[in-house]
Amino acid sequence: MIRVGIAGATGYTGVELVRILSRHPQVRIVAGTSEQYQGSALGAVFPHLGEEAGALELLPLEAERLAAACDVVFLALPHGVAGSVAPALVAEGVKVIDLGADFRLRDPEAYRAWYRHDPAPAELLAEAAYGLPELYREAIRPARLVANPGCYPTSCALAAAPLLKAGLVETRGIVFDSKSGVSGAGRGVSLGVHFGEVNENFKAYSVAGTHRHTPEIEQTLSDLAGEAIRVTFTPHLVPMTRGILTTAYFQLKEPVSREAVLEVFRDFYRGAPFVRVRPAGNLPQTKEVWGSNRCDIGVEVDARTGRVLVVAVLDNLVKGAAGQAVQNMNLLFGLPETLGLEALPVYP
Amino acid sequence: MIRVGIAGATGYTGVELVRILSRHPQVRIVAGTSEQYQGSALGAVFPHLGEEAGALELLPLEAERLAAACDVVFLALPHGVAGSVAPALVAEGVKVIDLGADFRLRDPEAYRAWYRHDPAPAELLAEAAYGLPELYREAIRPARLVANPGCYPTSCALAAAPLLKAGLVETRGIVFDSKSGVSGAGRGVSLGVHFGEVNENFKAYSVAGTHRHTPEIEQTLSDLAGEAIRVTFTPHLVPMTRGILTTAYFQLKEPVSREAVLEVFRDFYRGAPFVRVRPAGNLPQTKEVWGSNRCDIGVEVDARTGRVLVVAVLDNLVKGAAGQAVQNMNLLFGLPETLGLEALPVYP
Amino acid sequence: MIRVGIAGATGYTGVELVRILSRHPQVRIVAGTSEQYQGSALGAVFPHLGEEAGALELLPLEAERLAAACDVVFLALPHGVAGSVAPALVAEGVKVIDLGADFRLRDPEAYRAWYRHDPAPAELLAEAAYGLPELYREAIRPARLVANPGCYPTSCALAAAPLLKAGLVETRGIVFDSKSGVSGAGRGVSLGVHFGEVNENFKAYSVAGTHRHTPEIEQTLSDLAGEAIRVTFTPHLVPMTRGILTTAYFQLKEPVSREAVLEVFRDFYRGAPFVRVRPAGNLPQTKEVWGSNRCDIGVEVDARTGRVLVVAVLDNLVKGAAGQAVQNMNLLFGLPETLGLEALPVYP
Amino acid sequence: MIRVGIAGATGYTGVELVRILSRHPQVRIVAGTSEQYQGSALGAVFPHLGEEAGALELLPLEAERLAAACDVVFLALPHGVAGSVAPALVAEGVKVIDLGADFRLRDPEAYRAWYRHDPAPAELLAEAAYGLPELYREAIRPARLVANPGCYPTSCALAAAPLLKAGLVETRGIVFDSKSGVSGAGRGVSLGVHFGEVNENFKAYSVAGTHRHTPEIEQTLSDLAGEAIRVTFTPHLVPMTRGILTTAYFQLKEPVSREAVLEVFRDFYRGAPFVRVRPAGNLPQTKEVWGSNRCDIGVEVDARTGRVLVVAVLDNLVKGAAGQAVQNMNLLFGLPETLGLEALPVYP
Repeated sequence: MIRVGIAGATGYTGVELVRILSRHPQVRIVAGTSEQYQGSALGAVFPHLGEEAGALELLPLEAERLAAACDVVFLALPHGVAGSVAPALVAEGVKVIDLGADFRLRDPEAYRAWYRHDPAPAELLAEAAYGLPELYREAIRPARLVANPGCYPTSCALAAAPLLKAGLVETRGIVFDSKSGVSGAGRGVSLGVHFGEVNENFKAYSVAGTHRHTPEIEQTLSDLAGEAIRVTFTPHLVPMTRGILTTAYFQLKEPVSREAVLEVFRDFYRGAPFVRVRPAGNLPQTKEVWGSNRCDIGVEVDARTGRVLVVAVLDNLVKGAAGQAVQNMNLLFGLPETLGLEALPVYP
Repeated sequence: MIRVGIAGATGYTGVELVRILSRHPQVRIVAGTSEQYQGSALGAVFPHLGEEAGALELLPLEAERLAAACDVVFLALPHGVAGSVAPALVAEGVKVIDLGADFRLRDPEAYRAWYRHDPAPAELLAEAAYGLPELYREAIRPARLVANPGCYPTSCALAAAPLLKAGLVETRGIVFDSKSGVSGAGRGVSLGVHFGEVNENFKAYSVAGTHRHTPEIEQTLSDLAGEAIRVTFTPHLVPMTRGILTTAYFQLKEPVSREAVLEVFRDFYRGAPFVRVRPAGNLPQTKEVWGSNRCDIGVEVDARTGRVLVVAVLDNLVKGAAGQAVQNMNLLFGLPETLGLEALPVYP
Repeated sequence: MIRVGIAGATGYTGVELVRILSRHPQVRIVAGTSEQYQGSALGAVFPHLGEEAGALELLPLEAERLAAACDVVFLALPHGVAGSVAPALVAEGVKVIDLGADFRLRDPEAYRAWYRHDPAPAELLAEAAYGLPELYREAIRPARLVANPGCYPTSCALAAAPLLKAGLVETRGIVFDSKSGVSGAGRGVSLGVHFGEVNENFKAYSVAGTHRHTPEIEQTLSDLAGEAIRVTFTPHLVPMTRGILTTAYFQLKEPVSREAVLEVFRDFYRGAPFVRVRPAGNLPQTKEVWGSNRCDIGVEVDARTGRVLVVAVLDNLVKGAAGQAVQNMNLLFGLPETLGLEALPVYP
Repeated sequence: MIRVGIAGATGYTGVELVRILSRHPQVRIVAGTSEQYQGSALGAVFPHLGEEAGALELLPLEAERLAAACDVVFLALPHGVAGSVAPALVAEGVKVIDLGADFRLRDPEAYRAWYRHDPAPAELLAEAAYGLPELYREAIRPARLVANPGCYPTSCALAAAPLLKAGLVETRGIVFDSKSGVSGAGRGVSLGVHFGEVNENFKAYSVAGTHRHTPEIEQTLSDLAGEAIRVTFTPHLVPMTRGILTTAYFQLKEPVSREAVLEVFRDFYRGAPFVRVRPAGNLPQTKEVWGSNRCDIGVEVDARTGRVLVVAVLDNLVKGAAGQAVQNMNLLFGLPETLGLEALPVYP
């Protein structure tokens, strides 16, 4: 059994890790930390967990203690904290999967510019694997430290990858219009997540290239295209709890049929157990992946304007966070990629 | 492996059976029927099911065909249909779990009066076990036919059982004020489930003893009390998809402390793996059982008015329908009661 | 034109007062206060108000300044604050309508016990009119100070009044099972109003006679019945923004037909422009009063159990708060009771 | 008083016309039609309307009868029906405002291609004014027949107009990513508006230039630019009842500052009482126009990619349908453009 620790167990990402890992056949959760609730049992914060998963006692965040008890530690911490905790864990031979942003951007100065915080130590940053298995699987397997991608970037990268790899589309002018449920904002309280402000409401936010996921998306797309790419990324808030849908707009270099584009997607994702390319004429909805680690993708071609549209959906807390982290853990420990992640979406 | 058939696989109850059973380690789904979609693959109706669960071909409803292929058949059919299908299945030695109302009321005339339909054959009605394991577990184990309870009655009966069994409360004047998510109305289209009519809205319906679950609740409560009981049951519609919360009001015969009442509940549900009695001061919310087979119960005593209040929550599609049906299947086949039903609630 | 001030203009109640009063033909809003946003224009906090209503500059709360500028001041303040502000305003001849609880309970000791705060000055408390026009209209007209009722108590009192006045029902054992939208909790941030915790969720809270609206409901019902009444009141939270539905349960003294009960309600509310008694068989839904000052009431008799059920709905921010306050203002200033409150509900 | 008829009074658009017009000081609603509910009073279908507005008796659709009774008739009918009813009304000197699509496209063959239905009579089509007052005000005033725009096209055209008129942006590659609440689909029942399918879900539909609003958007944009324009328009369904938000993407011809673009918008909409251009850094949300006839617009420039982003929000049933129709009626009858439409948005 793999001994697992979760640093930051009482946020939405943390408790989703608990939900998934407590049913994983090769895992035992041995430690959880929480600044806010330390000293309590996890079940006192989340009564839905029941006796077994709820029994975990919440500790303060101490790297040594986690290192002593765990084979792998998931970090679900505010930006800037992981960078200071991870080195001690890695030094002790503990695998680290960071669900925050501290190790996502390879360029330390980009991190500093976008997150307004000192970047993580350069040598550790350099060796971190970007944990999007569908694109970086072989780099993840041997890694000591995995930077789990952001929720939006996962949807954008998976929507764009086959097109850029195949060179079918212009690398300029790409638009990602993304829509997310509210849980992506975390469990912290603020007016922005107040039910009265969110319900029966829809808004854009952090538009025009100001959202921190922008450089992360661009880093992956540039990897795929082999050239520096800039994108327009616009996040929106949907009055629902879970789910991201990204509508991605690309300009075709030359006319291509929908069927041909679909074939490119199917080829690309052959062997990717969590990505489903939908048949022609069938676009995915967020509910169709709710609670699962799936990313479903639909494709349309607009011959009138020479565009390819890609619609990608995922559950921001699963494939966009905790589920993808477990997928990465499976790769790190040589387990089947899908282990513990087989649950079907909950519908309706 | 138990070979399972699902008659009525494309309603909300049917597809929830598919979700649960496709992950059950001792089950193989070998047949599914649908009047509306016969001839299609299940995955064409529900793309979220993916290749494996979606591959099932939908058949017309034919008892012989089901009997030949299945060890157990779940009936998720409109009222009145199960009564005509079940006899042929039972006669062939196939276990039947009916998720409709046709076998719930022991009194055929009560069925006729409330459902305005001919009751099921008397002999089969007489032998049907009422599938609420927490109250009728031993009658279920050897049964050939199980009548899976209604969603509301499950919550009402579990809220009332310990109090009536212990004789702590008056048997007159009991009120069940129940609130349900919209999926309880099924997948059929109507103005009553139109998003524009339900969202940002709350209503009562079928009030004043007119809802068909009333005699079902009364039958179980009368069993528990050993005398004929009449209750006031009022259902309401909540603008959410899943979940039932029942607020139950009882008059204490004599003053009793909350702690004493809680102890009665804890004793009663010892050994019931899906019922959680909450600690004092902690009332359950529907979200805390979402997607799971749990029924969580909280208790308060109002000394000012001599009342006990019980709050019971469950997921109407799981413990209120498909999950409870699988729990019954486990009992019928001598499996651990929790097998295939261990998933934690999805939160948030 | 009546010069109006709003103390606490940036809570949900305050901004609803602005919405209604800015369209009232006899009113000019001349002052608004906000601790949090003082110095800003109201439109900077609420862009939806537009230039005209948004131009109001937010002041700190100073009684003298308000008294100098206003003919009437609405107090939408935290409990305990109104009690210290109102005297200075009344002393200056300014009419005061308090939307908080400080003047609702006639008994100072009851206030102290339920609100854990010093009660308002006794003489002012003694002269305050309880602002439920349908029951206390004549006391309101000449008042200097009006205590605007709570949202739940408005629905409970209007549901019960005709029955108690007519002596049709037992005064013991009355149950009010109330359900409210989230805006009733105000605009302050907390985990309890976090979208992720409220959406797709339903819960009871402050049950078993612990909610502060309990003594307020009992005070009014005791007035009506001419005897001290204790009730069971249970509030619940509905995943919607606006609306209260109260299901009220009464025991009939003797069998009475639904039609006879309806006639009692119709008689009682003749001349009450905002209360609509629904025809037999037609129960109101919260959406049917959304955004309006209406309270709609439906009645059913359950002959099986000898109960009368009353369902009352209102918009908690309008008839449950700001709209009722404007109705009271109209009475104080001798205007038609409906002036500025004629807008139809917004549906859907 | 203007005598008004509403053909199709029981759909969401029809009942919204009733809500607005019943409070309009210069209007009397004298006739309403409904195929489904003819013979009933409107209040029997919509109890929220109350006695006065609810008293209207619903008639079958007969042009002569409407012509005899009305000065103006609003047509809220299925596509294809208005085309056959309007001529008789116009011939009798009755003003007609069609809220459907039959008179929106000037090119009859485009109508036939997109709506798969015979177009309206050519001469009437030729004289119809496109009822977007902010762009076609002078053509509307003298018209006999007004084609009220679609909800999506209103948001897209208002977002694009200042930019195209000023020639600031490329006319190729424009993307409108639009998101709508469910009421846009009307009150008819279907699986697509089932609460269980829509709630906690988000989807795109009619993508890649297949939605019928595409040619309508292109017609207006081509008018503005003076050249034929093709756009990419993608509608999405948001789990809320009312509201449209369109995120519009344009490529700047040359670098321009946000402030300069905002100035272009402010100039363009000076004198348009229902369009509010938001200050820099302030983007509108759908809730901020809920229930009102406003269209709020926010603008951002992304210097990194040379793009202008415009976010436009409106209430699809008001500025996107019934409110805009009343605005057009005001123009037709020489009334102040805002008469009867002054209500503030309902927030929260």
